[in-house]
Amino acid sequence: LHGRIRIRRFLQLMKHVLIILGAIFLLITIICIQLVRASSHRIPKRTHKDLVEGGVVSMCSPAFNRILPPASGERPLIIIITPTHARPTRLADMIRFAQTLMHIHDIVWLVIEDGDALSDPVYRIIRRTQRAYCYFGVKRNRALPLRGWTARDFALKFLRKRFAEFSNRAIVYFADDDNTYDIRLFDMFIRKVKTVGVWAVGIVAQRPVEAPRVNNDSVVDGWLTDYAPKREWAIDMAGFALNLNIILQRKNANFIDCKVSSPEPCLLSRLNLTKQDLQPFGHADYPRDILVWHTKSSHLIKKGLMKRSYGYLIE
Amino acid sequence: LHGRIRIRRFLQLMKHVLIILGAIFLLITIICIQLVRASSHRIPKRTHKDLVEGGVVSMCSPAFNRILPPASGERPLIIIITPTHARPTRLADMIRFAQTLMHIHDIVWLVIEDGDALSDPVYRIIRRTQRAYCYFGVKRNRALPLRGWTARDFALKFLRKRFAEFSNRAIVYFADDDNTYDIRLFDMFIRKVKTVGVWAVGIVAQRPVEAPRVNNDSVVDGWLTDYAPKREWAIDMAGFALNLNIILQRKNANFIDCKVSSPEPCLLSRLNLTKQDLQPFGHADYPRDILVWHTKSSHLIKKGLMKRSYGYLIE
Repeated sequence: LHGRIRIRRFLQLMKHVLIILGAIFLLITIICIQLVRASSHRIPKRTHKDLVEGGVVSMCSPAFNRILPPASGERPLIIIITPTHARPTRLADMIRFAQTLMHIHDIVWLVIEDGDALSDPVYRIIRRTQRAYCYFGVKRNRALPLRGWTARDFALKFLRKRFAEFSNRAIVYFADDDNTYDIRLFDMFIRKVKTVGVWAVGIVAQRPVEAPRVNNDSVVDGWLTDYAPKREWAIDMAGFALNLNIILQRKNANFIDCKVSSPEPCLLSRLNLTKQDLQPFGHADYPRDILVWHTKSSHLIKKGLMKRSYGYLIE
Repeated sequence: LHGRIRIRRFLQLMKHVLIILGAIFLLITIICIQLVRASSHRIPKRTHKDLVEGGVVSMCSPAFNRILPPASGERPLIIIITPTHARPTRLADMIRFAQTLMHIHDIVWLVIEDGDALSDPVYRIIRRTQRAYCYFGVKRNRALPLRGWTARDFALKFLRKRFAEFSNRAIVYFADDDNTYDIRLFDMFIRKVKTVGVWAVGIVAQRPVEAPRVNNDSVVDGWLTDYAPKREWAIDMAGFALNLNIILQRKNANFIDCKVSSPEPCLLSRLNLTKQDLQPFGHADYPRDILVWHTKSSHLIKKGLMKRSYGYLIE
């Protein structure tokens, strides 16, 4: 009998021990999850020295470092490349663009500063989007005609290394911070690009609109513009997006080797593209809405007054 | 026995009838709900002739017509008043502003067109926000110095009729379509306004920033600006919001009776306000972020080329 009681007591004890152990295990798990979460809110400062040449600083979100190629059933990723530089209207322009991107999911935002110093107000705007991002500072290549070229050339190199495994599961769009984007542009046009997508851009080249001209077979055979419409590429950077695959396959395409022309025909001709490769969007819609506008903010500030900012942040 | 069988059969029948009736009732209920839903998507064209003087056209969302004063535990409503007029950059400006408002809840957007013809592209932009809105066309009062005055004066009259029962449960903000709004402005500043809230505005009056000057007792005692800082109201329309109560109480305040000065001091002085009534926001924050910018889009279009729009929508 004593033996049985002992066994019973032992089992009772074991039961309590197991319950306590279980509770402790649960507690540790919860604490671990909280710790992991808390640490993922910290923004790691790291330089992508392994990915790109020297002279580049970068701040990437934890979400960026976790990004993997989408499976074939999933929506492809949109990689947005934004060259930017300090100017009085920059923070306002970046706020508007960031708030536009906050409506779009499954995107990566690569912001490339003109110079190797990152701007803290810009960084905070980017971070508030809660999107996957990298903010780079890239020293300008003075041999290139305009400042945006260095940034876009850096972006092509970075894409070929960081997104090498993404094949056709991502689309690349060069998006300036002062343009106006209708949020429908991203999922109705860009997300569907299999090769090169093209569409109308409003208020560009001192004209109300420039757009691809589409023939009855839905093939682009020219450009709707009265300014040199016979040009091979009468298109603004905001008017096209590229399937990543095209950039990965044409490894030599860059913004360096054709310094004389504007950047759009430079890139598109070096990618070995013809108008027949283009996918036109929006030309058959009714009404014919423009979904991206090449807007510019006026610099309304009198010279010599830039320093009167009373501790408020302005660039 | 026969009787019992009959009763049983009758009960059986009644069971079936009840099931069928139940099913039909359920079906009708579902159809009714669907019909009500479908009808609520239709936008009723109606003129607020009962609310305002003649010569006004309006399109209001069903959500607008359902709006009631928030209970005291609920967040107050923000009423946003936007005068607008056709110009080449208008659609782009409206797209950006509409997409900003799509981040904010518990708002009503009153858009007032300069003239009695409504713009269909603008209407579609407003409708896509899925916010409660009214889009008005109000014929300009040529006696007033600038076109925005007619719209804002109309808005004051409309507020005093449609929102008469809202007491202090709404805040009124005059927001131009080309300004830049950080989404934090709405819930961190405007929503908390008990009397008159004031804050910094970026890129205004040809200066990087104008802001209220706040003394150690957190009272506004002047203005941070080097352009006539001794003015009673050195503030832009974007830099303040009013608790609805103030507009309801001061029934005579309008934009008509002081034609010479700019609209901000006109309204604020006619509302019988002093600087001591002001609630300053953002002055003690670190960093001192600007949450609203008086941006302007450049009109980059060459004269005579406005008609080259190839069927795409531009104004």
